[in-house]
Amino acid sequence: MAAHPPDPTPSVLPPPDGEALGAEVTREKLLQAAHELLYERAGEPVTVSEICTRAGANVAMVKYCFGSKDGLLDALVERLLTQLTREIDRLDALGLPPGEALRRHVAEMVRNYVRFPYVNRLLNERLVRGEPDTVDRLSRAYAEPTRAWYARLLAEGHRDEGWREVDPTFFFFTVIGACEFLFSARTWLERSFAEPMDQELVERFVTHTTELVLAGLGGRPA
Amino acid sequence: MAAHPPDPTPSVLPPPDGEALGAEVTREKLLQAAHELLYERAGEPVTVSEICTRAGANVAMVKYCFGSKDGLLDALVERLLTQLTREIDRLDALGLPPGEALRRHVAEMVRNYVRFPYVNRLLNERLVRGEPDTVDRLSRAYAEPTRAWYARLLAEGHRDEGWREVDPTFFFFTVIGACEFLFSARTWLERSFAEPMDQELVERFVTHTTELVLAGLGGRPA
Repeated sequence: MAAHPPDPTPSVLPPPDGEALGAEVTREKLLQAAHELLYERAGEPVTVSEICTRAGANVAMVKYCFGSKDGLLDALVERLLTQLTREIDRLDALGLPPGEALRRHVAEMVRNYVRFPYVNRLLNERLVRGEPDTVDRLSRAYAEPTRAWYARLLAEGHRDEGWREVDPTFFFFTVIGACEFLFSARTWLERSFAEPMDQELVERFVTHTTELVLAGLGGRPA
Repeated sequence: MAAHPPDPTPSVLPPPDGEALGAEVTREKLLQAAHELLYERAGEPVTVSEICTRAGANVAMVKYCFGSKDGLLDALVERLLTQLTREIDRLDALGLPPGEALRRHVAEMVRNYVRFPYVNRLLNERLVRGEPDTVDRLSRAYAEPTRAWYARLLAEGHRDEGWREVDPTFFFFTVIGACEFLFSARTWLERSFAEPMDQELVERFVTHTTELVLAGLGGRPA
């Protein structure tokens, strides 16, 4: 029994930079196919052959475009993490007060785990394996800019909204973990606690998480 | 580059109920060997042959004692989760005020991830695979009693210490995730943020996490 996603239709991947041409078109189809299959199976492994069948691509294209299946999954994780960082950039550009910016950010993070519930599983595999080039690329795509934004936000919140002084590196790990584990352990939520993960539950979880984090910093809960 | 644990010596597993006799002795040696290897490799996969060599056991004993390698890892996860639940029982028996009980519990949880940093990786694999019997056993060993304890604690804290009303199911997922992701993503901590995971860092993280959670409930930070 694999858990079913709240919406049976997987979303479309965030697009690449620039228009996809030639082999890039196949590359995109392979990434989208891998995303759809991982989503539909709630993160359970998928084979190269299944990805290629879904993409309508020859299996040789995985090697040509990505070097290997792992290379394809690395590229998928990097695409998703890059997208998360762009959401932070867009949010940052709005110039909101720190509490409101953090509230919107935490809500976006939870909703992204609904759209891409398998991302932390793939990410953790890559971090445990610890291949330096992959770790560094994923860090530049996400961990470093996100931690840097948290550091600025926490400093502003301390100055403008009286937040406690909080270590931005630790904050990075605790906030991501707080948003994510519901999705990793979804089988417990649905099977053991008998709470179906539907839109209503996700929105209640957004409220729960944003309030816990905001109050945890000494900010005012919603 | 696999991350190295803070202490290069893996701890001894929590013991089974009762004395190990006959094949139980081999069963214990296999569990301890799997634990040591997973610890030393920071969660990277280990083979049956490596486990048996470390345990000084014939490979046929894995099938005899556990049915399969997966059965061995299921038993290891169940042993560790059962131990976490017993720590909660011991803590609960002290009859501490809810804030102090929660503070000690969160600190214990973080320190358990230092001793068993691979446990959530194995757990998540089992939850994603979703085999009903395994999910139910792990839930009875840990998720159900822990969530039930959180429900009582949150009710007491609301009554005695003015905590906000918080959903115990969501609290279960957010607190575990908040404590855990530092250990899953340790490679980012050490390689990308250049912070070695030593005893000093773990204790700072304990303080960070307990304060964030306590303040998040409306309790007084340390």
